[in-house]
Amino acid sequence: MRLMIVGLMLFVTVNTFAQGLLPSWNEGPSKQAVLSFIEKTTTQGSPDFVPVAQRIAVFDNDGTLWSEQPIYVQLAFTMDRVKALAPQHPEWKTTQPFQSVLENDLKGVLASGHKGLFELIAATHAGVDHETFRNTVEAWLKTARHPRTGRPYTEMVYQPMLELLAYLETRGYKTYIVSGGGIEFMRPWTEMVYGIPPERVIGSSIKTKFEIVAGQPQLIGLPELQFIDDGKNKPIAIQERIGRRPVMAFGNSDGDREMLWWTSAGQGPRFGMLIRHTDDVREVAYDRQSSIGRLDQALDMAPEKGWVVVDMKRDWKEIFPPKK
Amino acid sequence: MRLMIVGLMLFVTVNTFAQGLLPSWNEGPSKQAVLSFIEKTTTQGSPDFVPVAQRIAVFDNDGTLWSEQPIYVQLAFTMDRVKALAPQHPEWKTTQPFQSVLENDLKGVLASGHKGLFELIAATHAGVDHETFRNTVEAWLKTARHPRTGRPYTEMVYQPMLELLAYLETRGYKTYIVSGGGIEFMRPWTEMVYGIPPERVIGSSIKTKFEIVAGQPQLIGLPELQFIDDGKNKPIAIQERIGRRPVMAFGNSDGDREMLWWTSAGQGPRFGMLIRHTDDVREVAYDRQSSIGRLDQALDMAPEKGWVVVDMKRDWKEIFPPKK
Repeated sequence: MRLMIVGLMLFVTVNTFAQGLLPSWNEGPSKQAVLSFIEKTTTQGSPDFVPVAQRIAVFDNDGTLWSEQPIYVQLAFTMDRVKALAPQHPEWKTTQPFQSVLENDLKGVLASGHKGLFELIAATHAGVDHETFRNTVEAWLKTARHPRTGRPYTEMVYQPMLELLAYLETRGYKTYIVSGGGIEFMRPWTEMVYGIPPERVIGSSIKTKFEIVAGQPQLIGLPELQFIDDGKNKPIAIQERIGRRPVMAFGNSDGDREMLWWTSAGQGPRFGMLIRHTDDVREVAYDRQSSIGRLDQALDMAPEKGWVVVDMKRDWKEIFPPKK
Repeated sequence: MRLMIVGLMLFVTVNTFAQGLLPSWNEGPSKQAVLSFIEKTTTQGSPDFVPVAQRIAVFDNDGTLWSEQPIYVQLAFTMDRVKALAPQHPEWKTTQPFQSVLENDLKGVLASGHKGLFELIAATHAGVDHETFRNTVEAWLKTARHPRTGRPYTEMVYQPMLELLAYLETRGYKTYIVSGGGIEFMRPWTEMVYGIPPERVIGSSIKTKFEIVAGQPQLIGLPELQFIDDGKNKPIAIQERIGRRPVMAFGNSDGDREMLWWTSAGQGPRFGMLIRHTDDVREVAYDRQSSIGRLDQALDMAPEKGWVVVDMKRDWKEIFPPKK
C-alpha cells in the first residue's frame, strides 16, 4: 500500500514537473519514459532509487548528440586539414586517398576504405603534441560550416538532447560521451557545447609517445591506431574508464548495440534509448540502409530489451538550437 | 599594493588554518609548502588561482598512499590466489613460477622476472568477468593481513596522505590514483579507503573481451597484458583518461618521475611531491638501492624541478591510522 502511494506520488510529480522540462520534446511515450525513469531513480524512498555515485549515463556522439550527415564531422575536419597541409606535400596531388580529398571526390575518399581513412587520420591528427592539436581543432570549428545549413558544426547538435544532458546533471547523473569519434577531436568543445568535461569523454584514439623536446616533456600523437571505440569495444572502454556499469545508455546505430545491451543487462533499473533519424525535412531520414550510422540490428533488438526508440519526426519539437 | 595585501591575508590565513589541518603532519617546510600551494590556488583573487575544473591532483598508490613493503600488496594477493587455486592445477607443484609460490619461496618468485610475474597475474586475474574478480578481491581483503604488523592491508595506508586527500577534496581538487598496480585490483576498495571512486582510478590492465554467456553480455579478463601504467606511460594515461595536465602530482619512486615532470612543466602554478621512505622504525627505510619502489633519478631531479621531498621520519607525526 505504501509503495502504491509512493508510486502515485511519483506519477503526479512527473506529470506536474513535465510541463516545464525538456521543452523541445513533444509530449508522448518517449518523453514520458525518460522523465519517469529519471524521477524514479533519483527520488529518495523510491524502490528504484539509485545512489548518486552510481548514476552514470553514457551517450554516443555522432547521430545521437549531433548530426553525422552528410559525413561525420571529423571526416570534414580531416579533409579540410589535408587541404591546408597540401602545400607541404606536393606528392598528395597524385597519391590516393589524398588526391580524392584535394579533388573534393567524396566517393573516392570513402572508396579508400578503413585503410585509406586511417591514412588521412594519421596525416592530419598525428605528429604534434596534444595541446597543438587542440588549438587546431578549436581554430577549425570557428570557421568551418555545415555544408547544408551553413551553421557552425557546434550548432548542429540536437536541442532535445542538450536539454536532457542538462536535466540529468541536475538530477545527479554523471553524463559521459562514449563515441567512435576521436577522443582528442571531441575534447576541445564538449565542455562548452554539452557541459561534458574532458575526463568524461571516451573515444577512439591513436597512440601517444612521451618525448623530451628542448628539455620539455611533450605528449605527441603517433600515426598508429590505438583503440576503436565502437561495437563490443564500447562496453570494454566503459569498464576500463568508468569502472561501473551505466544506468542509462543512449545511442543511434548498431555501433551502440553492445553498449545498450550491457547497460540493460545490469541488475536494478536500467534504461536504453535509440535515436531514430526519421525526419527528412528537418534533418535526414536514414536507418537500416545507411552506410553512416546504420541502425538495423539494434533496432530489431529494442523491443525485447525494452529500449525506447525516439522517432525524431514525431518526438522532437525542435531538432537544432535556435540560431545565434 | 592590493596584491601585497592579498598575499599577506593568504599568509595569515594559512598560518591560522594550519593549526587544525593535516594533524598527522609535523609543522615544517613540507606541510607548509603543500598547504600554501592549496591555499593560493583555491583562493579567489589570488594571482595563482586555478578554476575548479582544472584542479586535478594525481597520486601514485604503492609507496605513496599505502605501504609497498615487504612486497607489493597485489603480489601478496596473487600468491594467495595461486595457493587457493592450486588444487585445480596439480601441475603447478612442479612448474615455475607456481612452484616457488606454493613453497613460499619469495626469492624464487621474484627471480622469475617480469615474464614469471605476468604468468602469475594471468593465472589469477584473468578468465573471469570483472564483477566476479571484484568479489574475489573484496573477500581476500577481509582476511589477508600484513606479514609484519598483522593489520588488514587497507589499514596499511598513510594517515598523513588520507588527511591530504580529504583536504584536497574540500578545496575543490579532484584526486586521481595513477598507479602501476592493476586497475581492477584497486577499484574495489579505493572509494572506501581513500574516497576515490572507480572512475578516478588509473592503473595497469589486462585485455578484456565482451562475450555473451548464457544470453547475457559479460566482460571477461584475458591473460594478455594491455597496459603497464608506469614511467612514461603515466603521463600518457593521464592524458588519455583525464585529458588535462594535473596541477599537483604525488609519487615516491622513479616510476613517478615522468608524471611529476610533465605536471610541473605545465604553465601556471604546479606542485610535485615525492614521499621518501626514511623511517626504519615505524615503516621501512629505502630509496636508491631498493628493488621495490626505487627512488633515485627522481630524487636527483627534485631540487631543479622544485619538487617537495617528504622525509617520512621527520615530516610525519603518524604513519598509519589508529587501529580499529
